[in-house]
Amino acid sequence: MARAAEGKGTRASKPRVSIIDCDIHNAVPGLDALFPYLPERWRRHAQTIGMRGRNALAKGHVYPKSSPEACRVDAWPSSGPPGSDLALMQHQHLDPLGIAIGILNCLVNLGPQLNHEWAAALSRAVNDWQVAEWLDKDARLRASIVVPYEYPELAVQELRRAARAHPGFVQVLILVRTQEPLGRPHYRPIFQAASEVGLPVALHFGGTSGHAITACGWPSFYLEDHTSMSQAFQAQLVSLVLEGVFERFPQLRVVMVEGGFAWVPPVMWRMDQHWRRLREETPYLRRAPSEYVRAHIALTTQPMEEPEHPGHLLDLLEMMAEGPKLMFATDYPHWDFDAPDRAFPVQIRDDARTQIYEANARGLYRL
Amino acid sequence: MARAAEGKGTRASKPRVSIIDCDIHNAVPGLDALFPYLPERWRRHAQTIGMRGRNALAKGHVYPKSSPEACRVDAWPSSGPPGSDLALMQHQHLDPLGIAIGILNCLVNLGPQLNHEWAAALSRAVNDWQVAEWLDKDARLRASIVVPYEYPELAVQELRRAARAHPGFVQVLILVRTQEPLGRPHYRPIFQAASEVGLPVALHFGGTSGHAITACGWPSFYLEDHTSMSQAFQAQLVSLVLEGVFERFPQLRVVMVEGGFAWVPPVMWRMDQHWRRLREETPYLRRAPSEYVRAHIALTTQPMEEPEHPGHLLDLLEMMAEGPKLMFATDYPHWDFDAPDRAFPVQIRDDARTQIYEANARGLYRL
Repeated sequence: MARAAEGKGTRASKPRVSIIDCDIHNAVPGLDALFPYLPERWRRHAQTIGMRGRNALAKGHVYPKSSPEACRVDAWPSSGPPGSDLALMQHQHLDPLGIAIGILNCLVNLGPQLNHEWAAALSRAVNDWQVAEWLDKDARLRASIVVPYEYPELAVQELRRAARAHPGFVQVLILVRTQEPLGRPHYRPIFQAASEVGLPVALHFGGTSGHAITACGWPSFYLEDHTSMSQAFQAQLVSLVLEGVFERFPQLRVVMVEGGFAWVPPVMWRMDQHWRRLREETPYLRRAPSEYVRAHIALTTQPMEEPEHPGHLLDLLEMMAEGPKLMFATDYPHWDFDAPDRAFPVQIRDDARTQIYEANARGLYRL
Repeated sequence: MARAAEGKGTRASKPRVSIIDCDIHNAVPGLDALFPYLPERWRRHAQTIGMRGRNALAKGHVYPKSSPEACRVDAWPSSGPPGSDLALMQHQHLDPLGIAIGILNCLVNLGPQLNHEWAAALSRAVNDWQVAEWLDKDARLRASIVVPYEYPELAVQELRRAARAHPGFVQVLILVRTQEPLGRPHYRPIFQAASEVGLPVALHFGGTSGHAITACGWPSFYLEDHTSMSQAFQAQLVSLVLEGVFERFPQLRVVMVEGGFAWVPPVMWRMDQHWRRLREETPYLRRAPSEYVRAHIALTTQPMEEPEHPGHLLDLLEMMAEGPKLMFATDYPHWDFDAPDRAFPVQIRDDARTQIYEANARGLYRL
């Protein structure tokens, strides 16, 4: 929405620390932009069938209409959607805000695609397009590998191929609302492969799972969807930890992008408490659930938590001081963008600032 | 589980404040115990058809088998399930722990019943049984009116009838996992009637909604169900506030029972933040969402939040100092019972203690 974009500005003053922006959205302008990267069979498919997934009708719930593609009104290039024009991204975002490194999360609705071979072809094309149009054109950029994650065997093939293809791929991307909780055995090959090639797996806001977004069914408003999306992150955190994914893959790191982070300490407490009493159900866990969260999870800051009393944000950071790690993100070019110099509603300590704006991401992504 | 019951004991030392226990479970020993309160037609129904609801097979997910009915192993009377014997409840709970007032929440699986007239007859019988077998026999007890809440017209009839029938009924009970979020128009007559007769509506852990308990589908473990149930409370809080239920019914109070409370500040922050940017979608809200939470919501303490660093519980209480209100509860006779003198893992201030153990409930329920 226009008002939203104005609410947090893009003031050009550079903050004092080097900034790694862990959530920038590059966008495929349209399926035809992928034609150079698609075999003939799938070019025809794109023209005759196109995207065909579960819950096509639910798309209206994802973003408000007044904010097409959920983007800032000032972020539309002369042609194509926001995030599709590297020059505008450089001019409007990377250069003036002094972004040292920006991590691209290209949101393609691969999860619900019903034709699994199309989903795989599309993911290959998007990744090749990212190499040619983004990674090879600006040394500040890194990118996430998109994969057809509901088809783990195909996802693993593409994950391994892309990881070998370009060193600029720094993680594997999954939209958070999957068809089953991600700790379930179905998805295990993806985490195994990511762990083996040494890439974190990022879970990003969005996706269409086929399930209602609440335990009590479908809510009425976009405002509720947007508020409740953090519950999908909670569910995935609980599932990954309690299914023992981190016990199986001790090198694996998972990044939660755009899901908030104030909910993390309450979920850690609740998991530990119930686990102490019910641990027989998950005998392979050798540590308290919260310890896996501390060791294996990172979260991005946007949308920043904004308590009525800003001091409560410091209490929250204190609760998270021993982990999990926070990493700064803007969500450019989306409407609820956080500018680096205005993201935190309260002064945070210099060492925490350095960790959040730069060091945590540098460590996690080996930058 | 046996271990669990031993974990938090029933030590008989009386705490210093008067205790109002906001969550005690009395149990119907079996459908035949309700025969004196059922018309002939429904006695026959109970014998020939019985309970018949959605998700009958999902019941196994609700409680671990090692803890039948999810109850303390020491709480089984000589016959019938835990909570079905007033004498044992008096001897084991009310007398030794010095419970001044105990609020009974009789968990009957009314929500998923498919025969709506049976659901209504059953709720009437349970409420009449509660009057005869509990309220009229111990002056310390109060009770929740059970209603067929998926059939609001029938629920309103029973709510009004029971509220007139006995002054010991102090609230209306709904299990938190409903078929739709409770702010949806379908349920509005229940909140209107509760508001008109001056009774709070309690949402209690449990229920079978037909929907997966997470936005990402069905998890593998009871441990996950138990951890994720707080998400159902989050969804209901968001729905009630954003649908304007408290704007329509300014006298209405809602009590959230056995859903935790550490998640409340994060949800208040997130709702406020998104509402500031998207308030056009809910133009009837005249205040920030968090203000409705502060004014209209109370939560019970069991299961107590148990941070690794107990001091973080004090930070949490500070975040909630301006509301919503907390009220003490034991959850007797269930397996994760909190004893009054051991519930808080950290020393809390005397005034907070008085509020939580007694004053908040006295005010809310006009005791």
